[in-house]
Amino acid sequence: MALLIRNGLVVTDNSQGVADVLCEGEVISAIGTNLQVPAEAEVLDATGKYVFPGFIDPHTHIHLPFMGAFAKDTYETGTRAALLGGTTTIFDMCCPSRDVQPWEGYQEWRARSEGQACCDYSFHMGVTRFDDDSPGQLRRVVGDGVASFKIFLAYKDALGLGDEGLFRALRLARELGVVTAVHCENATLISELQRELLAVGQTGPAAHHESRPPQVEAEGVHHLMTFAGLTRAPVYIVHLSCREALEEALRGRQRGVDVRIETLIQYLVLDKSLAEQPGFEGAKYVMSPPLRDKANQGILWNALRQGLVDTVATDHAPFDFSDQKALGRDDFTKIPNGIPALSDRIPLLHTHGVLKGRMSLQDLVRTASANTARIFGLFPKKGTIQPGADADLVIYDPEARYTLSAKTHPMNVDYSAFEGWEVQGRAETVTLRGRIVVRNGRHVGSPGDGHFLRRQPSAA
Amino acid sequence: MALLIRNGLVVTDNSQGVADVLCEGEVISAIGTNLQVPAEAEVLDATGKYVFPGFIDPHTHIHLPFMGAFAKDTYETGTRAALLGGTTTIFDMCCPSRDVQPWEGYQEWRARSEGQACCDYSFHMGVTRFDDDSPGQLRRVVGDGVASFKIFLAYKDALGLGDEGLFRALRLARELGVVTAVHCENATLISELQRELLAVGQTGPAAHHESRPPQVEAEGVHHLMTFAGLTRAPVYIVHLSCREALEEALRGRQRGVDVRIETLIQYLVLDKSLAEQPGFEGAKYVMSPPLRDKANQGILWNALRQGLVDTVATDHAPFDFSDQKALGRDDFTKIPNGIPALSDRIPLLHTHGVLKGRMSLQDLVRTASANTARIFGLFPKKGTIQPGADADLVIYDPEARYTLSAKTHPMNVDYSAFEGWEVQGRAETVTLRGRIVVRNGRHVGSPGDGHFLRRQPSAA
Amino acid sequence: MALLIRNGLVVTDNSQGVADVLCEGEVISAIGTNLQVPAEAEVLDATGKYVFPGFIDPHTHIHLPFMGAFAKDTYETGTRAALLGGTTTIFDMCCPSRDVQPWEGYQEWRARSEGQACCDYSFHMGVTRFDDDSPGQLRRVVGDGVASFKIFLAYKDALGLGDEGLFRALRLARELGVVTAVHCENATLISELQRELLAVGQTGPAAHHESRPPQVEAEGVHHLMTFAGLTRAPVYIVHLSCREALEEALRGRQRGVDVRIETLIQYLVLDKSLAEQPGFEGAKYVMSPPLRDKANQGILWNALRQGLVDTVATDHAPFDFSDQKALGRDDFTKIPNGIPALSDRIPLLHTHGVLKGRMSLQDLVRTASANTARIFGLFPKKGTIQPGADADLVIYDPEARYTLSAKTHPMNVDYSAFEGWEVQGRAETVTLRGRIVVRNGRHVGSPGDGHFLRRQPSAA
Amino acid sequence: MALLIRNGLVVTDNSQGVADVLCEGEVISAIGTNLQVPAEAEVLDATGKYVFPGFIDPHTHIHLPFMGAFAKDTYETGTRAALLGGTTTIFDMCCPSRDVQPWEGYQEWRARSEGQACCDYSFHMGVTRFDDDSPGQLRRVVGDGVASFKIFLAYKDALGLGDEGLFRALRLARELGVVTAVHCENATLISELQRELLAVGQTGPAAHHESRPPQVEAEGVHHLMTFAGLTRAPVYIVHLSCREALEEALRGRQRGVDVRIETLIQYLVLDKSLAEQPGFEGAKYVMSPPLRDKANQGILWNALRQGLVDTVATDHAPFDFSDQKALGRDDFTKIPNGIPALSDRIPLLHTHGVLKGRMSLQDLVRTASANTARIFGLFPKKGTIQPGADADLVIYDPEARYTLSAKTHPMNVDYSAFEGWEVQGRAETVTLRGRIVVRNGRHVGSPGDGHFLRRQPSAA
Repeated sequence: MALLIRNGLVVTDNSQGVADVLCEGEVISAIGTNLQVPAEAEVLDATGKYVFPGFIDPHTHIHLPFMGAFAKDTYETGTRAALLGGTTTIFDMCCPSRDVQPWEGYQEWRARSEGQACCDYSFHMGVTRFDDDSPGQLRRVVGDGVASFKIFLAYKDALGLGDEGLFRALRLARELGVVTAVHCENATLISELQRELLAVGQTGPAAHHESRPPQVEAEGVHHLMTFAGLTRAPVYIVHLSCREALEEALRGRQRGVDVRIETLIQYLVLDKSLAEQPGFEGAKYVMSPPLRDKANQGILWNALRQGLVDTVATDHAPFDFSDQKALGRDDFTKIPNGIPALSDRIPLLHTHGVLKGRMSLQDLVRTASANTARIFGLFPKKGTIQPGADADLVIYDPEARYTLSAKTHPMNVDYSAFEGWEVQGRAETVTLRGRIVVRNGRHVGSPGDGHFLRRQPSAA
Repeated sequence: MALLIRNGLVVTDNSQGVADVLCEGEVISAIGTNLQVPAEAEVLDATGKYVFPGFIDPHTHIHLPFMGAFAKDTYETGTRAALLGGTTTIFDMCCPSRDVQPWEGYQEWRARSEGQACCDYSFHMGVTRFDDDSPGQLRRVVGDGVASFKIFLAYKDALGLGDEGLFRALRLARELGVVTAVHCENATLISELQRELLAVGQTGPAAHHESRPPQVEAEGVHHLMTFAGLTRAPVYIVHLSCREALEEALRGRQRGVDVRIETLIQYLVLDKSLAEQPGFEGAKYVMSPPLRDKANQGILWNALRQGLVDTVATDHAPFDFSDQKALGRDDFTKIPNGIPALSDRIPLLHTHGVLKGRMSLQDLVRTASANTARIFGLFPKKGTIQPGADADLVIYDPEARYTLSAKTHPMNVDYSAFEGWEVQGRAETVTLRGRIVVRNGRHVGSPGDGHFLRRQPSAA
Repeated sequence: MALLIRNGLVVTDNSQGVADVLCEGEVISAIGTNLQVPAEAEVLDATGKYVFPGFIDPHTHIHLPFMGAFAKDTYETGTRAALLGGTTTIFDMCCPSRDVQPWEGYQEWRARSEGQACCDYSFHMGVTRFDDDSPGQLRRVVGDGVASFKIFLAYKDALGLGDEGLFRALRLARELGVVTAVHCENATLISELQRELLAVGQTGPAAHHESRPPQVEAEGVHHLMTFAGLTRAPVYIVHLSCREALEEALRGRQRGVDVRIETLIQYLVLDKSLAEQPGFEGAKYVMSPPLRDKANQGILWNALRQGLVDTVATDHAPFDFSDQKALGRDDFTKIPNGIPALSDRIPLLHTHGVLKGRMSLQDLVRTASANTARIFGLFPKKGTIQPGADADLVIYDPEARYTLSAKTHPMNVDYSAFEGWEVQGRAETVTLRGRIVVRNGRHVGSPGDGHFLRRQPSAA
Repeated sequence: MALLIRNGLVVTDNSQGVADVLCEGEVISAIGTNLQVPAEAEVLDATGKYVFPGFIDPHTHIHLPFMGAFAKDTYETGTRAALLGGTTTIFDMCCPSRDVQPWEGYQEWRARSEGQACCDYSFHMGVTRFDDDSPGQLRRVVGDGVASFKIFLAYKDALGLGDEGLFRALRLARELGVVTAVHCENATLISELQRELLAVGQTGPAAHHESRPPQVEAEGVHHLMTFAGLTRAPVYIVHLSCREALEEALRGRQRGVDVRIETLIQYLVLDKSLAEQPGFEGAKYVMSPPLRDKANQGILWNALRQGLVDTVATDHAPFDFSDQKALGRDDFTKIPNGIPALSDRIPLLHTHGVLKGRMSLQDLVRTASANTARIFGLFPKKGTIQPGADADLVIYDPEARYTLSAKTHPMNVDYSAFEGWEVQGRAETVTLRGRIVVRNGRHVGSPGDGHFLRRQPSAA
């Protein structure tokens, strides 16, 4: 079956122009003007619309046992929300407990997602311990198509890796040719500052930022730059939030460290005053690193436009406000971390980035799709519109307006950090490998539509 | 007439794969596997070869009355040399004397090149004075399709512009939506240091570097970053040569200055020890900014790979050693500046960059072709391989080896800075808008093949 | 005649302790406990008071024809105000017009001050032009005991020096062994921004900061760092106001530039919101560089404490609000620049620095007295308390409280930028070379008490 | 008994001039010209000599069980060597094993030194573990007069402290008002790099630098800057060796971290090529951080002169070459670390600093004596020449020349890193609290002359 998308403004990371896009089978077969309609092809008129490559979220947590709670989305609900927001591929974090061997832990994530996902997906393999068994176990996971690692410098008692593990995991990553994504915050500083804040009665959400100030993140980034420099391993900084951390990352890059940088849509549009609201309302805005002072927003937008920051993710981690965030009512350190945003990333980027002149449409594709595909080995199968690429396409109505709200959003979580915000621009129609899965803003696909994507390490 | 290039490794700045490329008329009409051969198409077998988009040199001087001499190439010889080196488009510097009005000066460059060029070309419009007439004159030049300016901070008595002119030209550039290319060296420091060196009898080529140390260039870059930041004009630093200057440029970029950076093939493979040879031999290696300490090479290669530096040019300015460089035999300040390299850029980048693992093939296309097209408004007509793009293609034999030498090089200059260097990789066949102009390493086109490229400013 | 100051807390830049100080003739003859009282000595009981070395203001403008007005103080009124504020030596700027030769201009400053000053004084010799006569003229001035230059990068049409003059003046300064004090703001940026602001109707005092944003000052500092680095001349940055400028200065220092840094009491306690008040009130707060965003205050206090900034001056330049500042009522560029503070520096530093824990008493002496003496060749004759040093002493009552006000201040100017501010600490008694010139907060000396201080250049 | 030193050039950190110095009892009682000779005073003629305050070494290891060996000096031999080199006070590192409680460990150092030392001494208290008992134990040590801590980030299995201990120790230090001296190298990077180097057969001394490259030290410094910034504890970086580490320290200082910096005489005059000599000769030059590339020397000399680095120490740790260094013959990680220099510091600083124009005599006093006294609470009792200060004086013959050699040096170690170097300048006579202990270059004092110096914390 074929699909012809007519007359849209086709936008990739380095070009835009009105054209037709023909999809045959699972892939794009032609881009051109006045393409002939194959027999039996469905024809969609995209006049006045944008045609984007499917967006890619490099950083989500669907299955996430964390801080005494489970994130609320399932692979079905999470990936459906992704699609409705224009995201056709996610990289989910596989974060096995240290109690299990990596391969075993990985199997759990594979099993939970298998047949459940509505969009395509891959994993970053969490390296939450590193011992003599690890190299063998991790090679097996990489061999199964998971060509990236994830390491936490924070959360030392749960998922975090110490310096020895960090060094050895990076050496292994270098050898295997996999990129390592790293959460950069110094674990001990956090726990000590938390302890001190609680001791003086600062127990509310406002103390969260104080327990993880910018210097804690900058310290993590500097630390990673040193380790990556000495091991010569390519690394990817997840959720960079502030000027101080950016400066350390770019100093590393200038010294020759092979580093890519991710920020989050949350840091671009929200700021720490939200977490400092009176009462417990601020708990909705507790994530790590924390929302920062507003002055960082302009710095991050500039960095995205200039190519200093490579990607925009969500770090989607949905915990209900009513009962899960509430676990930390008397102790901010117990508030499950995360601000759900999986379906909101693209409309927010379009509204606050493109429409406000902070980024071009091509920048949008570059930072929300193409760069992730390139960094993590999916390009040009994903991340662009060219013959042979997967026919993951988003027909985007740039004029549509709607309001973000927990009442209507497709994520399985009881609040929205963007409650009542009006956005402009909507993923009207979305295709996944040639099949229409969102039509007129409604999901028309099924769990299992989404495939697990096997990726090759660069050393392979 | 059509041309089908079969089975080459088609490389763009973000993809590579074996495919056929079909050119019809002046443009690429299809890329695919097993494309059908149109009737009367010429078929070239590119098995085992690379197929690159035509390379673009963002910075050449063909017509150049300078320092009492005329650069030796004509538009015919220079652009033929370009083609033989795989370069299908050049940006030549139009540097009119201050004695003439800009439009008049520009007409001279247009007249000299018209009908003479073997490859396509555009100009950067030199703003060598700025007075009340300038805005009107420069608008007219931009209106004729020259959507970029060139400003010299150096050479204050000849081409250089003072601070007031710099500010006003950048404001005009911002308004018009044109990018301004800037030679960043502080003019006064150079003239004072020259004066002092000559006064103590340091008259030989080795003093050239001493008269323009890295700090002189870093000063120029910092100065430009300030002016560009305050005028909000997009700028392009030409021929960045060293760590100190790079650091200033990147600090500007982090502060939000819209800046792109060019380095030269010369800085990547040559160093200042060459200009310090005994006798007058060093004069061959006199250019500005000067060749630097070798430690800068690794820094520049890293910066290219990491996207911190955007393009690689030649600043091609050919002055004969025997009689022109000789003008400075008793006074290094009179040595015409320039190291010819127009035909050598791509083989040197391939040999010393790609083959030594310092850059990928995609990096080569990105920095030696695509980025220039993007920055200066030619993308995707130039700089990539896609349907609708100009059929400027280079079939590159990665195994070919040959030796660079003044005896054999196509540039009209009596010496080679790379005399006797063996390179690997050669532009075997080159097409210009669908016509074969280099076949089997020989030029088979004619003067006049090359067109003047009209570019739109971004504000248009 | 002898003077014995008993039992005060004697504070120098590196020590403090209760002791007696004996002055004989013009100098300190002994420091000790329970010193014997010489016959006929006057004895002052300083129990519970501090005994400081006389404070030194490295940067004042007493005689100042500027921007169409004359600063209002005379050498009599200005130096009396200095003494009443605890300052016993000032460095006044000798800024001759370009119309006169340096020696001639210098004679005017000498003549106006001769016999008029109540405290000791020296000059920084303004180099406002540099031509073939300059070296000879300036050597003569230096030979007369003025071992420091002052250069303006701003005010290009009046006092400013271009790059050539800057380079040559610094080379001369290096040769002579004199320190060059430099006003670091890029002149052209200011004039261009002023022109643009006026053109769009921004004529009020609030536009002053916009015409000289931090980047304009940082540019000036970077420029000076380059020139000082290449000429190897020791330099002194006057009135550094902000983080951006400090960063450039410290980068220079790390590269080996011999640079000392001055900030002003105004930048430590006032901020730009004052110049942005509605109406014309803001004109009182117009000086250059402008008052900055409040965030800079903490940075400057830290820098003082850490030895990153060396001195605190006033840049005292008193223009009456009623008629002089008023010249700029319709055009902020015509507001005479300056915020008078000569008598307020020490009480403000004590109140906002020492009493708020931002600096120690020793830091106060170091930054408001000793460092200036050291940098400009007066140490240990001035700037400390030791046998043989000039008996310039301040008996300071740390508990005294009073209110700053134009109604009561000793400066000859009709407004106070600190109107109604309460300060704590007062120069109760002040001696100048052994004579009591302020007693119980009242001036008891006469014009002519103050001497012109001849200084030796370090190369002498 | 009194001592009158006549007519020497008396040099302190901020003054110099010919004067007499009178000592009565243990202290200086007067400085002046033509002082009267008290009855029974010994008079020393210092005409043509310098009179310095006794030099202070902020960092030595006399009693040091380390890496399987014991440093060879005893308190008697070490402190005698100090005196013969002009050093009258040392700060020795008290580094108790983790097996013992701090107070108990401290008692061992006290007992070994009691009655043995020829010069005065204090300790930095090594915090080699931090548990619930530590605050109480450490308070007791501080209460005994040891107002500074020492922490190792390196040597994690022996003396090193982890992040939690570091944070808590700094908080305690902040509370108590003690400065913490820190060895800044990342422990894990060292052990991992050592492991890898040994694994590929790099077992010789040359590998030592490779196992601790500059980035390992810069990482340690950045880490400390973060922890010190967040705990607001004053810190002191010991033995800073290179540009990369200096840059991190100064960035911290600019952010407001209260940090002081020490370098070593070894880094100023030796470089890593010495440790890279063939065979095992390089073992003599193994210390940590390692000797660096020669380019760092100019950077450190500049930093000392500019006040960016505060002190020059020796980190004296004497291990015999013949049998102790030899422990690492087959494994560089087993070479006991240290380059003895206790008696060589001042002559080397004088010869390579003062005589080569890299520092003034006042800089010498500032960096080798006064600053240490100030930072660690001994000023002005030690570190300067003023009435009331301890009469620790060095009459220095600036013309004396001699040759450094293991055959003649007073340190108890069988080799000299400076074998055969000629130096100029010698401590001819040295007094300790008013008694002559070195006369004409010979030690004439006895063990027990030196006292343990009790210091008050600043919060006391």
